[in-house]
Amino acid sequence: MHRQTSGIFLLFALFLLPLSGEGASVERWNRYEIRLKGPQAGNPFDDVVLKGAFCREGDTDTIYVTGFYDGNGEYALRFMPGETGAWRYRTISNASALNGKTGVFVCTGATGNNHGPVTVRDTYDFKYADGTPYYPFGTTVYALIHQDEALESRTFETLAAAPFNKIRMCVFPKNYAYNKNEPRFYPFEKGTGNAAEAGNETAVWNFARFDPEFFRHLEACIDRLEALGIQCDLILFHPYDKGRWGFDRMTRENDLRYLRYVVARLSSFRNVWWSMANEYDYMREKTPADWEAFLQTVAAEDPYGHLRSVHNGDRYFDHTHPLVTHASLQNASILSDFGRAGLMRDVYAKPIVMDEFCYEGNFPERWGDLSAEEMTHRCWQGALTGAYLTHGETFLSDDDVVWWSKGGVLKGESPARIAFLRDFVEKHGSMHIIDNWRNLNTAVTESGAIVVYFGKEAPKEWEVNLPAKTRLADGTKLKIDLVDTWNMTTVPVAGDFTAKGQTRYVIGEAAGRKVKLPGRPYMALVVTPESK
Amino acid sequence: MHRQTSGIFLLFALFLLPLSGEGASVERWNRYEIRLKGPQAGNPFDDVVLKGAFCREGDTDTIYVTGFYDGNGEYALRFMPGETGAWRYRTISNASALNGKTGVFVCTGATGNNHGPVTVRDTYDFKYADGTPYYPFGTTVYALIHQDEALESRTFETLAAAPFNKIRMCVFPKNYAYNKNEPRFYPFEKGTGNAAEAGNETAVWNFARFDPEFFRHLEACIDRLEALGIQCDLILFHPYDKGRWGFDRMTRENDLRYLRYVVARLSSFRNVWWSMANEYDYMREKTPADWEAFLQTVAAEDPYGHLRSVHNGDRYFDHTHPLVTHASLQNASILSDFGRAGLMRDVYAKPIVMDEFCYEGNFPERWGDLSAEEMTHRCWQGALTGAYLTHGETFLSDDDVVWWSKGGVLKGESPARIAFLRDFVEKHGSMHIIDNWRNLNTAVTESGAIVVYFGKEAPKEWEVNLPAKTRLADGTKLKIDLVDTWNMTTVPVAGDFTAKGQTRYVIGEAAGRKVKLPGRPYMALVVTPESK
Repeated sequence: MHRQTSGIFLLFALFLLPLSGEGASVERWNRYEIRLKGPQAGNPFDDVVLKGAFCREGDTDTIYVTGFYDGNGEYALRFMPGETGAWRYRTISNASALNGKTGVFVCTGATGNNHGPVTVRDTYDFKYADGTPYYPFGTTVYALIHQDEALESRTFETLAAAPFNKIRMCVFPKNYAYNKNEPRFYPFEKGTGNAAEAGNETAVWNFARFDPEFFRHLEACIDRLEALGIQCDLILFHPYDKGRWGFDRMTRENDLRYLRYVVARLSSFRNVWWSMANEYDYMREKTPADWEAFLQTVAAEDPYGHLRSVHNGDRYFDHTHPLVTHASLQNASILSDFGRAGLMRDVYAKPIVMDEFCYEGNFPERWGDLSAEEMTHRCWQGALTGAYLTHGETFLSDDDVVWWSKGGVLKGESPARIAFLRDFVEKHGSMHIIDNWRNLNTAVTESGAIVVYFGKEAPKEWEVNLPAKTRLADGTKLKIDLVDTWNMTTVPVAGDFTAKGQTRYVIGEAAGRKVKLPGRPYMALVVTPESK
Repeated sequence: MHRQTSGIFLLFALFLLPLSGEGASVERWNRYEIRLKGPQAGNPFDDVVLKGAFCREGDTDTIYVTGFYDGNGEYALRFMPGETGAWRYRTISNASALNGKTGVFVCTGATGNNHGPVTVRDTYDFKYADGTPYYPFGTTVYALIHQDEALESRTFETLAAAPFNKIRMCVFPKNYAYNKNEPRFYPFEKGTGNAAEAGNETAVWNFARFDPEFFRHLEACIDRLEALGIQCDLILFHPYDKGRWGFDRMTRENDLRYLRYVVARLSSFRNVWWSMANEYDYMREKTPADWEAFLQTVAAEDPYGHLRSVHNGDRYFDHTHPLVTHASLQNASILSDFGRAGLMRDVYAKPIVMDEFCYEGNFPERWGDLSAEEMTHRCWQGALTGAYLTHGETFLSDDDVVWWSKGGVLKGESPARIAFLRDFVEKHGSMHIIDNWRNLNTAVTESGAIVVYFGKEAPKEWEVNLPAKTRLADGTKLKIDLVDTWNMTTVPVAGDFTAKGQTRYVIGEAAGRKVKLPGRPYMALVVTPESK
């Protein structure tokens, strides 16, 4: 939407400026921010239009970015350059103080852990912009930004030591079981109405005026996540308000103003993903037309095309929608069985992210009562089908600090196993079920290994039985490792194993050799074909 | 597309005719055919446009129907009236002999087993146009119309005694294992080219000229199916030609001419469904744009909106497509496990028809090697999720007459069980898994019964464990019947059973009474709530 080859005049104007000069430099995919003084009268959030036109020397494209009012008469334009080189910009505004400002800067190469924003790779997977594969292993702290400073710090300390490289968190505060505290900041200014007049305890907000303090805090959190290598799957709407603040039932006009403001502030943050909602279908006030408008607005306002999804409660969103980049799913039973989640991959032909499949914990509610074994098992079941998994933790606590909602510390035993699985996937690449007719426990990895996962079965031996679709030639030597997914060990299986076709569908072991197994659950075999 | 409120002049013209007169009468949803003599010169299939405008007295809508050339200088217009009353028509043609013909007829009420065409009911199910529920239990005889007369007659005799009320069959002949015979008729005239010139053994067809004989035979078969109460899920394209006749690799122009001709001839047949293809993704010559054009063409040419689907091989079609009325799926493993097919219902929010999930038989190919027990089991697994099932049978035979392709006689043991299942569904209504988080073996029926299916498990007793989502009040008396899905028996379970909530998710039996079970597989319990 914003990348246009028109505007030839503007282009010329940009490059008539001298290139050398006062321009700062910015690293590729970092944030270049331009701050300007402008009008404070009226409602600058609504009244002032500010755009920036950015063009790299030698390119014919201009990238248009929307600026925003940051309070106290200050305006900002943020830009995430996707290419190195010399860049120029010019501002466009209906406020003369903000119009026609120009500048130059140099974009230098990315360094360290900066691989750029995440995008879709090969239909089902993800990569960073520089091509490095990215395998999401998420967690959930819905109201991370709405806790006091001490708790928030503890959460970041925990994340620094945890295996998670994606987090789901909400912009708006949460009003739900185990989570009733008032937030530190509110996204809107208090209005001039009063709660009593409104007929309930809802405070009356001025939805046309944002509180920049709220957003600066949100941004600081997103930057802290980035520093930890964590993608921020930012939830733009959610139903856990129930009218308390009313952020779940604003008018369409207010919803869209809010989205435009959020995207103007945050699209230059490279680790942002747009989750239009958590459990969108539980937001009874919203219609399909609303979700369409939200997707369209976010896609139109974001010049970088950050990942977009709509997470469901009971009823799946239509993830075939062209503006949905990946399926963000909730399903409580899909990972409890061999191969089931593979159906979602087949149906949507997009990356599948199981963003909710119950949490490890001891809640009386079944969505929060998984054992660590079950959580770990579900993660392996999902990973075998090529789905990506999002952890959450729900242990009852005297202080009501539950990781899933507020953060704090992790108490469960699954995170260590998820770290082990993440290492496995980062070593072998993503997996998928190679023959979805039968052998639903057998996947192949990007590296070409074959993974047989036994789940809750606890066999004492395994007769080699690989799908013919692995195309192992007769005589191929097979290196076999035994992976204990619970105890996090990998040991080679002793013995020589050689592939031999048995039927048109099955490849077995040439001499009928079987693999000894320990008779415990949660075992996997990794079969690596070696040269004949 | 064809139902228009414009054309006011035409409407007036129609009703200026006297209503009384020579008009014949036709039963609602039957076929009213107008036959006209017209030009034979040139290529009447391409050169002559013939439309009929039909209007019912008192209506403002006009329904436009496309006529077709039937050979020997004869043209026909066929119309299926959807409402009783007095109808008038006027023809429109670029051939003066066919233009401006008018007539009147009376549409009388439907009688007997005429319930009209089938349409979607309540998102997931089907009904006839008169509102009567329709539960498809299909079978597969792909090349039914391409066998000799004796075999074809035997097929219809078998169908008359079989439990199937839908059949999947192809327009084009089939060139595939166990099915290499030349067809009785060809849809196109032989061309003037010769096979040798074409560089292979393919006969050279004149794709611009149809053979009406072929279509009259097809139509007779569809009418014979209708007389047996069988919906014809007519497969318009398929990949099992492999260039032998070349019907799988015509040009877009020829494909669309063919579709328009088929729809002009057949849309007035009330039992027709349009299956755009079998295994569309195996037709390597076709592109996504082709399937889009096919769906658009069929939808535009069919004034009645018959059901439309696109059946897959490995890769699902996008069944969220607005012109796809139901998901016609192939999946070899989705019915082998509890609740799995329910995912398709959740994803597509359309009726799910499992049109291929392997066949009962003894083929060496695994798609044709199911035992009768497995076929029956899969049908129950599917039915519990609200999916509809299509049978097929593949027993090796010295004469190469295999039901799945050529028809003949049924040899398997599943059809009797499918009859039993059909009776069950027609009595209780369709089912769906009531709590798709757990209890994936437990469905509720439209009639309000709860069905617990044990599949391959063979328990000796069952501790009452019903999902709280059944909302059975404490104290509700439960009538329980034991259904042996394999032996086709239903017997009441002795004893008094009373519902009592146990946890927030589970309803048990008030006195802890258990249900005795025979310790054999394939058992189901039907739990019917009675008043307190």
